[in-house]
Amino acid sequence: MLGLDPDPSALWPDAETDADRQGSAAQRAGRAVLRHCAAVIDATATACVAVKLQLARFELLGAPGWEALNAVAEHAHERGLFVIADGKRGDIDVSARAYAAGLFAGAETPFGRIDGLGADLVTVNPLMGIDALEPFVATAREAGAGVLVLVRTSNPGAADLEDLRVDGGGAVWERIAAIVARLGAERVGEAGLSDVGAVVGATEPAHLVRARELMGGAVFLLPGVGAQGGRVEDLAPAFAPGRAGGLITASRSIVGAYLKGDNVAGSAHPGAMALAEAERLREAAWALSAQEPPSVSATPSVR
Amino acid sequence: MLGLDPDPSALWPDAETDADRQGSAAQRAGRAVLRHCAAVIDATATACVAVKLQLARFELLGAPGWEALNAVAEHAHERGLFVIADGKRGDIDVSARAYAAGLFAGAETPFGRIDGLGADLVTVNPLMGIDALEPFVATAREAGAGVLVLVRTSNPGAADLEDLRVDGGGAVWERIAAIVARLGAERVGEAGLSDVGAVVGATEPAHLVRARELMGGAVFLLPGVGAQGGRVEDLAPAFAPGRAGGLITASRSIVGAYLKGDNVAGSAHPGAMALAEAERLREAAWALSAQEPPSVSATPSVR
Repeated sequence: MLGLDPDPSALWPDAETDADRQGSAAQRAGRAVLRHCAAVIDATATACVAVKLQLARFELLGAPGWEALNAVAEHAHERGLFVIADGKRGDIDVSARAYAAGLFAGAETPFGRIDGLGADLVTVNPLMGIDALEPFVATAREAGAGVLVLVRTSNPGAADLEDLRVDGGGAVWERIAAIVARLGAERVGEAGLSDVGAVVGATEPAHLVRARELMGGAVFLLPGVGAQGGRVEDLAPAFAPGRAGGLITASRSIVGAYLKGDNVAGSAHPGAMALAEAERLREAAWALSAQEPPSVSATPSVR
Repeated sequence: MLGLDPDPSALWPDAETDADRQGSAAQRAGRAVLRHCAAVIDATATACVAVKLQLARFELLGAPGWEALNAVAEHAHERGLFVIADGKRGDIDVSARAYAAGLFAGAETPFGRIDGLGADLVTVNPLMGIDALEPFVATAREAGAGVLVLVRTSNPGAADLEDLRVDGGGAVWERIAAIVARLGAERVGEAGLSDVGAVVGATEPAHLVRARELMGGAVFLLPGVGAQGGRVEDLAPAFAPGRAGGLITASRSIVGAYLKGDNVAGSAHPGAMALAEAERLREAAWALSAQEPPSVSATPSVR
């Protein structure tokens, strides 16, 4: 799965044309980011099932960034890809509903209907508890979409709070996993997968087996492959429920493939190199998901 | 402190003029939200020190919402108010830097300088750990601004994770408090207050004494007064370091004051009622902060 995390200073070479050099810096950057993202999508769509849009990069550009975000999501949908809005939002009920409406299907207002981003999946932050997650889950269900709850993230600092051991056994992240399993059990699809998934970093494979025990029916979003050091080969437990059980996301390793190794001068076409890297990751993941799944219990043991 | 949480279906009566009824629903809503927020600010600025902008409500409106957000922040600054961007963002390093740049001072790009929102304080979510907080703290310091870390939030679900008891003693939220104290100790201003503050819900006053023990130099943002049930009278511990130690935020109780009590028909001017409620809250808070402060130890006991 393609992660789009567009850094205005590291876009593909043709992201801005001469005719585009007008308007404010944010407007120019917004157009260039859109062109860049569309080119990466076009180059790799055959090897991906989804794009993950890092909202921070778009938000940095203000209103033009938000326009670019909408256009990138629309372009990805036109290419047959799912759209994951990676915003990690989390807030009290009324605010969570506003975030969810904006990222999924929009909202009716006295001024008319306001379109949402139309995301298929949205990452959410569970720190504030179940009542902060429920509006996202409910809004996703109305839109036929899903949520991905941060359970055990891929950054080194994840250990500071997520790994704290809790009275009664387990870590904080295992309590979050139990919440995910409980919310997800309310709706399970034909493939045995629920519409409440989990973000489980690919950088700590030791957690994956336990995570799959706690969340048997959750789709796992697996960030951290590539630039953050995670290896596809370590991710087998994520695919225990089948090929759709894991979404391996790689951003910089695909988009920046043309700058690596024997192509340091960047002479090869970025698109061809990106496609090759995306296909390599896909094949590695599919090889894993074709293996005999490990034995897994789908019964959460806490809460 | 004034919370602005503009619901498009509950704006002040004159938020949209006849001349404004053009463009898309989001554009109309964005203009009306801006006019509403500016009117509330103008009505209450003399009784407030800051506005807290709930980003979810602006984000829902897409690009026009982001334009409105910037204009509201600018208007608040013109009226001499601090601006708190309540977005509760949290992400890995590179994304945290993008969020922080967007909310504080902006960023240099190959397309030119992109302005940030210019917030004076930003709420952040600490779930992902210290390395997800540090980019916000560093960026805030460069901008002469500060951060407010979610420590113990005001919603009922806060108990689900924040209140979990941790091996070695204390709750998850107390570990977060210790992180806040540690990050804040790096820079303490003349009044003894640091540039890393805490969000501590006004709905659980029992936590406030302990929170002040753990974070002696932190500014406390105290949401939950009014619509969520918190009472100003219970918040004395927050003001132990002095009047600037606590920021009581009220949103719906100020903005919607004209719809309450003996004014159910909404006949009185919304601005006059909002000002009266803001002044009532300010006087209650100042009465508290003038009291003898409770004895407080500023030494964090954990980590």
